[in-house]
Amino acid sequence: MNVKIKGLLYSGKAKDILETDDPEVVAIRFRDDITAGDGEKKDTLEMKGYYNSLISAKIFEVLEDAGVATQYLELHEPGCILARRLEMIPLEVITRNIAAGSIVRRFPFREGQEFRPPLIQIDYKSDEHGDPMLNDDIILALGLATREELDEIRSITLRINDVLTEFFRSRSLVLPDFKLEFGRDSNGDIRLGDEISPDTCRLWDMATGEPLDKDIFRRGESGVVSAYRRVAEMILDPEDIERWKVKL
Amino acid sequence: MNVKIKGLLYSGKAKDILETDDPEVVAIRFRDDITAGDGEKKDTLEMKGYYNSLISAKIFEVLEDAGVATQYLELHEPGCILARRLEMIPLEVITRNIAAGSIVRRFPFREGQEFRPPLIQIDYKSDEHGDPMLNDDIILALGLATREELDEIRSITLRINDVLTEFFRSRSLVLPDFKLEFGRDSNGDIRLGDEISPDTCRLWDMATGEPLDKDIFRRGESGVVSAYRRVAEMILDPEDIERWKVKL
Repeated sequence: MNVKIKGLLYSGKAKDILETDDPEVVAIRFRDDITAGDGEKKDTLEMKGYYNSLISAKIFEVLEDAGVATQYLELHEPGCILARRLEMIPLEVITRNIAAGSIVRRFPFREGQEFRPPLIQIDYKSDEHGDPMLNDDIILALGLATREELDEIRSITLRINDVLTEFFRSRSLVLPDFKLEFGRDSNGDIRLGDEISPDTCRLWDMATGEPLDKDIFRRGESGVVSAYRRVAEMILDPEDIERWKVKL
Repeated sequence: MNVKIKGLLYSGKAKDILETDDPEVVAIRFRDDITAGDGEKKDTLEMKGYYNSLISAKIFEVLEDAGVATQYLELHEPGCILARRLEMIPLEVITRNIAAGSIVRRFPFREGQEFRPPLIQIDYKSDEHGDPMLNDDIILALGLATREELDEIRSITLRINDVLTEFFRSRSLVLPDFKLEFGRDSNGDIRLGDEISPDTCRLWDMATGEPLDKDIFRRGESGVVSAYRRVAEMILDPEDIERWKVKL
């Protein structure tokens, strides 16, 4: 895709969104910044953005191949993805297959407990309000999404969970939970946006059970970037490495 | 009803539940204790339990007359209600017609904003966990209620809101929000339990807009009990006062 990247539209905690000369296309630049605990814990980890962009590009391609409508267009270069411009919906849609993290602290679930069916939790993406959990009535009353959009988001999310759980299993990874964000494209249709990476998923090595995700950073341990590189090695195919001309 | 009240089954923040010699019947004793802010603010206000028992008895009778299945059997004496024994479900079902209180602090709603349709919020009744807000998936995963029970609770709640909004309007009172608790009777059927009083509702004087509920206590102002007596005066009929042989 031949587009020229222009000015910054929006800068998030770990990514920048940039305009291009095509009004329908944005560039998503994955930075090396990493944060946890509502931004209280911060660091910059060299190559994190590089690996996350490759991981996210691969996962979005897997989802597109499975018929999920996403924002993804192509990997522009390592660290930068081209994507359809969306009007983002300020919801964090969290799907849980295994109880871990905040859900265990806030409710009497047992760490490691399996959720069948998967448990969906929707948080309000608002730093000002501390990303509180929502329910459907509150989402509708705040006008964040319509009833129809919310039903569609849930249905797409469950489909994504099926596709990703199976994909990661085939790469010897367990997917305990993950966070999705959605937006509306220029036709008003719902598409998956943002990223899917070890910053936004829990991912465990199936053989050892060790985390290969942001929990390493949350716990203040070292080896964050090598774990992310490990994930890239496990999910990228030799053809991906060749066509993208990247090194892991 | 001729039952003998026996030992204490359970003591809550503002009420005691006592056994009777009928295993299907409990006595609910309304204490003068009042708490706010998760029990951080506490006091004992003489006659509060007296008025609340009369208010709650009246409201449960209004609901029973409207065909809502409740726990209520009769006012045993001022301060004490006889009720069907229920297996209580640890949910606080909050219905909001007008934005006030915590919902305005936690989400970008405007104080006084009307919710049409009414907004239902379900909290987990658990001091240990700080009464966190739930969503349906979490309620089901915790096994607190079944899908069918949850649908029924929502449907009964909306019916109660219609009945009470109209009843209070006819008594020159506005009902911005209220909290309900439900339980299962010996047949496994869902019934409304607990109390409905100025401890568990916001109630505003329609003419002046002044609160006649626990918000007076939350704000540290005086006149709590006289406001509750005022509510009793506004909703009790002369026949209620006569048959119950009570003084307001």
